Amino acid sequence: MFAKTDELKVLRDPVHGYIRVELQVIWDCINSAWFQRLRRIRQLGGANMVYHCAEHTRFSHSLGVYEVVRRMVSEVPDIVAALSERDKVVVMAAGLLHDLGHGPYSHTFELVTNTSHEEYTCRIIEEDTEITRILNSAAPGLAKEVADVIRHTSANPLLSQIVSSQLDADRMDYLLRDAYFTGTKYGEFDMERILRTLRIEDGRQLVVKQSGVYAVENYIMSRYHMYWQVYYHPTARSFECVMNALFRRIKELYGPANEEELIDVFRPLIKNRPLSLAEYFRLDESSCGYAFDVLAGHPDRIVSDMAGRIRDRRLFVYADSTPESIEAVREKLAACDLSEEYYLGHDSVRQNPYVPYTGQQDGSIWVRMKDGSVRELSNASNIVYSLTHGPTNDDNKIFFPRELAGLD
Amino acid sequence: MFAKTDELKVLRDPVHGYIRVELQVIWDCINSAWFQRLRRIRQLGGANMVYHCAEHTRFSHSLGVYEVVRRMVSEVPDIVAALSERDKVVVMAAGLLHDLGHGPYSHTFELVTNTSHEEYTCRIIEEDTEITRILNSAAPGLAKEVADVIRHTSANPLLSQIVSSQLDADRMDYLLRDAYFTGTKYGEFDMERILRTLRIEDGRQLVVKQSGVYAVENYIMSRYHMYWQVYYHPTARSFECVMNALFRRIKELYGPANEEELIDVFRPLIKNRPLSLAEYFRLDESSCGYAFDVLAGHPDRIVSDMAGRIRDRRLFVYADSTPESIEAVREKLAACDLSEEYYLGHDSVRQNPYVPYTGQQDGSIWVRMKDGSVRELSNASNIVYSLTHGPTNDDNKIFFPRELAGLD
Amino acid sequence: MFAKTDELKVLRDPVHGYIRVELQVIWDCINSAWFQRLRRIRQLGGANMVYHCAEHTRFSHSLGVYEVVRRMVSEVPDIVAALSERDKVVVMAAGLLHDLGHGPYSHTFELVTNTSHEEYTCRIIEEDTEITRILNSAAPGLAKEVADVIRHTSANPLLSQIVSSQLDADRMDYLLRDAYFTGTKYGEFDMERILRTLRIEDGRQLVVKQSGVYAVENYIMSRYHMYWQVYYHPTARSFECVMNALFRRIKELYGPANEEELIDVFRPLIKNRPLSLAEYFRLDESSCGYAFDVLAGHPDRIVSDMAGRIRDRRLFVYADSTPESIEAVREKLAACDLSEEYYLGHDSVRQNPYVPYTGQQDGSIWVRMKDGSVRELSNASNIVYSLTHGPTNDDNKIFFPRELAGLD
Amino acid sequence: MFAKTDELKVLRDPVHGYIRVELQVIWDCINSAWFQRLRRIRQLGGANMVYHCAEHTRFSHSLGVYEVVRRMVSEVPDIVAALSERDKVVVMAAGLLHDLGHGPYSHTFELVTNTSHEEYTCRIIEEDTEITRILNSAAPGLAKEVADVIRHTSANPLLSQIVSSQLDADRMDYLLRDAYFTGTKYGEFDMERILRTLRIEDGRQLVVKQSGVYAVENYIMSRYHMYWQVYYHPTARSFECVMNALFRRIKELYGPANEEELIDVFRPLIKNRPLSLAEYFRLDESSCGYAFDVLAGHPDRIVSDMAGRIRDRRLFVYADSTPESIEAVREKLAACDLSEEYYLGHDSVRQNPYVPYTGQQDGSIWVRMKDGSVRELSNASNIVYSLTHGPTNDDNKIFFPRELAGLD
Repeated sequence: MFAKTDELKVLRDPVHGYIRVELQVIWDCINSAWFQRLRRIRQLGGANMVYHCAEHTRFSHSLGVYEVVRRMVSEVPDIVAALSERDKVVVMAAGLLHDLGHGPYSHTFELVTNTSHEEYTCRIIEEDTEITRILNSAAPGLAKEVADVIRHTSANPLLSQIVSSQLDADRMDYLLRDAYFTGTKYGEFDMERILRTLRIEDGRQLVVKQSGVYAVENYIMSRYHMYWQVYYHPTARSFECVMNALFRRIKELYGPANEEELIDVFRPLIKNRPLSLAEYFRLDESSCGYAFDVLAGHPDRIVSDMAGRIRDRRLFVYADSTPESIEAVREKLAACDLSEEYYLGHDSVRQNPYVPYTGQQDGSIWVRMKDGSVRELSNASNIVYSLTHGPTNDDNKIFFPRELAGLD
Repeated sequence: MFAKTDELKVLRDPVHGYIRVELQVIWDCINSAWFQRLRRIRQLGGANMVYHCAEHTRFSHSLGVYEVVRRMVSEVPDIVAALSERDKVVVMAAGLLHDLGHGPYSHTFELVTNTSHEEYTCRIIEEDTEITRILNSAAPGLAKEVADVIRHTSANPLLSQIVSSQLDADRMDYLLRDAYFTGTKYGEFDMERILRTLRIEDGRQLVVKQSGVYAVENYIMSRYHMYWQVYYHPTARSFECVMNALFRRIKELYGPANEEELIDVFRPLIKNRPLSLAEYFRLDESSCGYAFDVLAGHPDRIVSDMAGRIRDRRLFVYADSTPESIEAVREKLAACDLSEEYYLGHDSVRQNPYVPYTGQQDGSIWVRMKDGSVRELSNASNIVYSLTHGPTNDDNKIFFPRELAGLD
Repeated sequence: MFAKTDELKVLRDPVHGYIRVELQVIWDCINSAWFQRLRRIRQLGGANMVYHCAEHTRFSHSLGVYEVVRRMVSEVPDIVAALSERDKVVVMAAGLLHDLGHGPYSHTFELVTNTSHEEYTCRIIEEDTEITRILNSAAPGLAKEVADVIRHTSANPLLSQIVSSQLDADRMDYLLRDAYFTGTKYGEFDMERILRTLRIEDGRQLVVKQSGVYAVENYIMSRYHMYWQVYYHPTARSFECVMNALFRRIKELYGPANEEELIDVFRPLIKNRPLSLAEYFRLDESSCGYAFDVLAGHPDRIVSDMAGRIRDRRLFVYADSTPESIEAVREKLAACDLSEEYYLGHDSVRQNPYVPYTGQQDGSIWVRMKDGSVRELSNASNIVYSLTHGPTNDDNKIFFPRELAGLD
Repeated sequence: MFAKTDELKVLRDPVHGYIRVELQVIWDCINSAWFQRLRRIRQLGGANMVYHCAEHTRFSHSLGVYEVVRRMVSEVPDIVAALSERDKVVVMAAGLLHDLGHGPYSHTFELVTNTSHEEYTCRIIEEDTEITRILNSAAPGLAKEVADVIRHTSANPLLSQIVSSQLDADRMDYLLRDAYFTGTKYGEFDMERILRTLRIEDGRQLVVKQSGVYAVENYIMSRYHMYWQVYYHPTARSFECVMNALFRRIKELYGPANEEELIDVFRPLIKNRPLSLAEYFRLDESSCGYAFDVLAGHPDRIVSDMAGRIRDRRLFVYADSTPESIEAVREKLAACDLSEEYYLGHDSVRQNPYVPYTGQQDGSIWVRMKDGSVRELSNASNIVYSLTHGPTNDDNKIFFPRELAGLD
């Protein structure tokens, strides 16, 4: 049996009302330095440049995912019945900790460090940190089981489906949360109804009852619109583009010979080896913010320009990517003696609101029809069928300094 | 005439729907480095330790105050008629910029630097910064007029009443905004009705029509509840208490002789002279966050302990302040060889939901009764009369390390 | 054991999200003709003349009260532990059925029939109706136990406190619901927090923990504002005033001798005897609406005028009641040859947001302080103390035809 | 010039915040008996049987449509510039009055009376009623111009597009309103953004800027989901099915010879001639509610059964329509001696979320692309293209008494 906290802990949350914690192991994880570090990592790196209220952190998102998982394992009858007490704790902890390894400005840092945040998450859970000790003290072997869920190597496939599939606690929280903090309405959908229509098929697969299909369609559309309106907003991508240029320049300028000249928190990034957890711990949006301010006074013109652009939000402007637009920017860059390598960014995004089952991945959404048969979502919903068979949206853009836009 | 932007700029805001900007001078202020710096200063220093979603910044609050002022000067007929075009721009700019001089973790830094944020605000507006140049380019002398509103020395008393009184754009925005981001409902009130019932008396005094008194009562109660539930929450005060201890310790350890040993962003704080604006610019919650992490490894046991407590949210616990509780903590501190100076915090707060007119200050709320007479709010509302004449709430607390709580 | 429905029944409700029913006895009550009749009785008789969306019915309010009770008896640990299974069913049924005896335009009809709606409620529950049979089939004697709760004669005082006290499921639902459907924000308060801080003292008295006092203060203020802004809105009172005049005129015109000439649904009202339940069943806002239309063509000038005023919303206007205003209207009435008895209405309202304990009634709110002592709310909250000791609001108005307002 | 009211009239509305009226002609229309009659006609006939809070009326919807039109003609720059003062009044009045001719339980009564509500609307506006006089007093010929907009025969095509097209004030209000009062979230979309991106092309066609396409997609999806979740909910269709059976039976039983035996309000319905406006005025949901109660005691077994079913909500149950299900119900009906004509209902619905332009109708949605070209929506949105080219949803159901469901 897992120890309970001395009283129910409740944290006020605008999205879920309250986050409820009654297990000591969960409470201890929340109070650890590694989890508190997530207060210093924003959920949306870059989108707060467009949506000025989107300052919410991975800390609040992680609590939200935990809360959705907690509700699933205590309110959805099929899940209540299917999971052991230990599995419930494992999956709640996995929900809480699934983003533990995120660095600042996530995508950019994954590119810079060549490491996925999932890898760091599992290292922090298993490599003998405070988190590891909390989990294994609660039950020997718990840390590995939690990491297995995050790695999709858990013995029980339901656990990964709850935390990470195309209809999971992670996505449900972030859509609602990002909608709330950006102030867009696109991300809203009827989570209550989805939870009420969740069932388990064959003991191994989460399914939605047919009567929940409209709510799932709505959720799929919410994702679609959030991608285009928020996650793929060109200004957010411009922010990433400038940051990417900054780090590429730093890597060009520094190496083993002169790494000591670089600001301390960024030194590990140029070492061509995995970061230690102690190094990784220090990389958060506070230390990066400090570093950008310092680098804004750097002697290299490109470094100081890019760092100042990030600090003061003088981002690149954008245009649709065409041979003509690229050529026009190139000419202007040449005229200004600006390096195309750093001053002309390219970014192409594409979004599938839903990926139907292809026989390999396990994240598809399945529907239990009224007649008892089970169908993959795109066979159960005309809307989703149409979306997955219709033309695909993609968006190719180039990014460059605003000053060039006015040149002629 | 003030230049307009090439098209109406609209920023999505969850509290007001949209922030609308159509004057170039406002748009340029928003895009300045000094204003963008407010993205790195949270609105509620400390309350995000209790309300984990309250990460909203002074940037969004400042935009919100601007928007409320903009609506007042374009939608409230009496104000539309009473103010010149220039006064309207001045008061919108004052609303936008009134918090420009805020430092990180506001109250603590005001104590540490012995300087109010209003002073810095006026310096940034008038001391030849980018802001000064933007304002004075739009109209010579504009910067001083904006600062006059913030200093309450404007020739037109209406301007200060709009931006800073007991019923002003500042308070209206922050109550709604803080309620939204904490997820409490206490801060909600009917701003639309207040705006609709605003009038000007004698050309010099904002008043509310009697039919708006209920909405004002509601607003007063919202403030009251927000103070006790959010702003004066003991955990937020604990955060300030620990930070205060850290800075007192730093000041004790460092002086002119060894200031170079201190982390760079904090050096100006120990120099017993006003900070330069360049020094002040660098003090934001990013650089402080970085500094706390560095100081968590500081050789002084008190510095490292306090900095680590802030970084990892290991705050002090609290108890009602009584001779007995103080004595008990003192004994335990002595037993652990911990200094009372740093490890026993005292904090006393008191809140008046509304301060009636006493003949001196000019921020009272006035009501135009149906018969045309004008009364001060506490004479027009039984509720407010009762509140201002009833017993006063205060709260005296002591703060100390959690470890001591369990000692015996 | 009480039978469950074959599956959980959930009804979408904008105020509570969902209404959840899992007991067959509750479901059967909902589906009875007497309960469905509440669809034809609006919650706010008259206020929809001011707030045009306030068309919500006692049907939805009754479901809402049931839902709040259901949450109390299944989510508040002290209540879960204190009540037997049977008591829980009794109090849920009492919450569901407490308004069953309401007639149309409640206050007016209570005046006209000289009977309180509580009396009808108990008669419908106990006088061998479909409801009686449903309850007693579920468990012999259940109907009487439910009626006892409504009559405040239950053996267990907690049951009446849950359904009917100054902080009960009834008030909590109607404040939230009326706020939602009028579109005012005054009625909102933090029900979740109140539920979380409810405790039972001595096995006999519901109390709120001190940490919930702010939420209770907020609730008290919500009631206060809803009374003045909605329930006591002069236009709603004007509606009641006109309807009252109509019924007084009908009673004057008709009696045993000529009752057959009166429209059928209104005949029982003039018989100076209690109505039979069959007669009462027919009195709803549909039949009244039909009757008003018929009576708008009645030969008596006063009847037809009043009925037309109700149907077409040509209500009386109002003024503060003073000797002068009364005299002025009297003169105009005389000049127009209109009867003061019907064309000059008087109405005086007063509201105490909270009634402290005086030793007799049992509906006061009690607070368990941190030190374990229990205090009556006005001794635990400075706000409530001030409100109950400050000046009282009352509002005396006269009502008269709009045409007179312009006479001179 | 059109006369203004003595002060701005504001009506609180939960959907739009406030409804603002400043023209006397609009205010007079609102206060007319014909418009007040809309308080007695629900917006959703039948859906309140499923969504118990959906009691909102055509009165509030009509005010809402007016408000959306008012905002369009005063806030959308292209429309402000394109329309004359008179056109603005015409289109606001058309928005307010477009549903004036709705009868109770709309679809059923249109079937019973063989007349569309639009016809009645135009008759009420033009046939010398109070409405006609109000409009023509404000400006000679105004009534006809308002009716022309509703009939789509206005000289200015923009006016009908504003009030009645696939993206109009009518649909925008009802989606938001129905979502609010049912408590579903499906109907929400970003009206603010749509309004902000509206433009006029060639002086004759409303278009949406490409940057508003996501908001329009969201609106299309909202409609789609509201149709299936609310308007086409089988329980709402069951309600219509029972009411249809009742009226068919009444028509069978009564004719010129015995029409006096029928309850007065229903007599005009069996006369095989258009109703007079005086007769139509009396047909509202109050008089129908009264009539159902009276008919529940009718000697004809089918009439009394159907009327009682409507009054007490004992609706038919439903099943997918298949040869087998139909045959099974037929057998059971025969066994119970129930007439298939009345006791077996069929209903087939199909919904296109958007109808692309086919060269004839004028209600399509057009998009102004960034390059200045104008495309029909399904050529500008991949989502809408997919929806209009994918498989179509339809739903064929049969309806029959619940008692039969359990037979065997």
